[in-house]
Amino acid sequence: MPLLVVGTLGLDTVETPNEKRENVLGGSAVYFSYAASYFTSVKLVGVAGDDWPAEHTALLESRQIDMRGVQIVPGGRTFRWRGRYRANMNDRDSLETQLNVIAKFDPVLPEEYRRCPFLFLANGPTALQHKILDQCAGATLRVADTMELWIKSEPERLAELLKRIDGLVMNDSEAKLLSGNENLVTAGHAIRQMGPRFVVIKKGEHGAMFFSKHETYVLPAYPTPRVVDPTGAGDSFAGGMMGYLAEQGNFEPRTLKEAMAYGILVASFTVEEFSLDRLKRIERQDLQRRMEEYRKMLSF
Amino acid sequence: MPLLVVGTLGLDTVETPNEKRENVLGGSAVYFSYAASYFTSVKLVGVAGDDWPAEHTALLESRQIDMRGVQIVPGGRTFRWRGRYRANMNDRDSLETQLNVIAKFDPVLPEEYRRCPFLFLANGPTALQHKILDQCAGATLRVADTMELWIKSEPERLAELLKRIDGLVMNDSEAKLLSGNENLVTAGHAIRQMGPRFVVIKKGEHGAMFFSKHETYVLPAYPTPRVVDPTGAGDSFAGGMMGYLAEQGNFEPRTLKEAMAYGILVASFTVEEFSLDRLKRIERQDLQRRMEEYRKMLSF
Repeated sequence: MPLLVVGTLGLDTVETPNEKRENVLGGSAVYFSYAASYFTSVKLVGVAGDDWPAEHTALLESRQIDMRGVQIVPGGRTFRWRGRYRANMNDRDSLETQLNVIAKFDPVLPEEYRRCPFLFLANGPTALQHKILDQCAGATLRVADTMELWIKSEPERLAELLKRIDGLVMNDSEAKLLSGNENLVTAGHAIRQMGPRFVVIKKGEHGAMFFSKHETYVLPAYPTPRVVDPTGAGDSFAGGMMGYLAEQGNFEPRTLKEAMAYGILVASFTVEEFSLDRLKRIERQDLQRRMEEYRKMLSF
Repeated sequence: MPLLVVGTLGLDTVETPNEKRENVLGGSAVYFSYAASYFTSVKLVGVAGDDWPAEHTALLESRQIDMRGVQIVPGGRTFRWRGRYRANMNDRDSLETQLNVIAKFDPVLPEEYRRCPFLFLANGPTALQHKILDQCAGATLRVADTMELWIKSEPERLAELLKRIDGLVMNDSEAKLLSGNENLVTAGHAIRQMGPRFVVIKKGEHGAMFFSKHETYVLPAYPTPRVVDPTGAGDSFAGGMMGYLAEQGNFEPRTLKEAMAYGILVASFTVEEFSLDRLKRIERQDLQRRMEEYRKMLSF
């Protein structure tokens, strides 16, 4: 089944302890879409300036990602993010975030987009996430991501959003902030009680946790020795997870757990190079191979 | 098969964000032995002062832990540790460590102890660990723990120790320090190449990793919502792991992975209350039940 994502298209400048890359392809919707494209057809909703290189659009289209929902604002400047990773490659400092064209983005979705059954609201202003939900009233599965900025700046709008979605995906520090609880198990269930039927907490190099009324579980990250750039790992995780759910066309508990595992595995490839460089060189069968290793790792 | 452990008997003063306990039963060999006692008979080697409450010895003996290897030094004072946990309950500050009677501990093992096939050298001075190895030349499986203090203060003695043992267990920050590498997968294999046939890296609330020549895997922690006091989690992990190996009488790859899982599960009980309070109220069948849940959690 088709999957709709709304989120950022970005140009990232990333510094790691070993290397620096300037203005490389990034953004939550970009990582998400590429990761999901191994499983299903994706429709992307986003905005860019006319500094957005046409080759980026061509790359995403080569993966059957529908880019008709992307607005290019004449004279506008694309969202930019600059960050620096610490030695542990798990913590990072955001040095600069330029919203640019995103600040005034007010999407009107094409009719075909509105009928998309699977919907993911990647990180972005909560008001924008509400607008998308308004236009996709009939979606079967609505999942959102959020971040510190919105938890702190628009707590009420976010509280309303949580009542309108089926699932919420966020990282561990955000879950602690939103719930006011330092224990992730308690935090996950507290957030679930704010509205969503399930909550996923991403723990970076330590994997991800899942919470629903009847289930609590954690799956570890795939142990890759090669962590070059963690940017986009969380969005790739969400893309792999939602892509697999859309492919399977359901979100039964068993499918959700498999989807979590696929999310973890796509993310484990993403971090092995900068930007989408590693994902560009893998196919579904590479995910399949790593899944076999992963299942073996977890069975005893 | 019987299991020998040498390590500390301690009196801990622990502060968590919610509570404080003074002079409670602790120490690496105590947590280790109690955890291992669910699986096998344990012989404990350690030292205490005459301030050591007889009830602690009685408690351990009630678990069939052989305390004949414990010296009580007349007029001596037992090892004491005082620590404070931060809000996340994973990081802690050691406020005070009094070695006391441990500083001059020079054990001579009873003949029966020397023939113990399974041996664990809990955290302690590297010179002391060497002395135990000298006396247990015929042990089948020799595993050690170490910590920052010894990595920094006795790097050469530790390098020699690594060549004399089969397995090393340590936490993530210690593994990074010892290997000089921030990626835990790379760190684990680098340490393995320093001598031991296998390396286990404990990641606290995030589980544990295993490294041997042919295997690399990570198992997550059991997600308990109830973390009251993490003290002794690492030693309980090691006790559960070694106890299970000793019970099974082998350390084949498959047994090692099951042992890792049991270590994780015993530790998940330890943190649910202060000191040994939670372990005192569980039996092997409680571990078994949690193991069933854990296996289910990891299968999909």
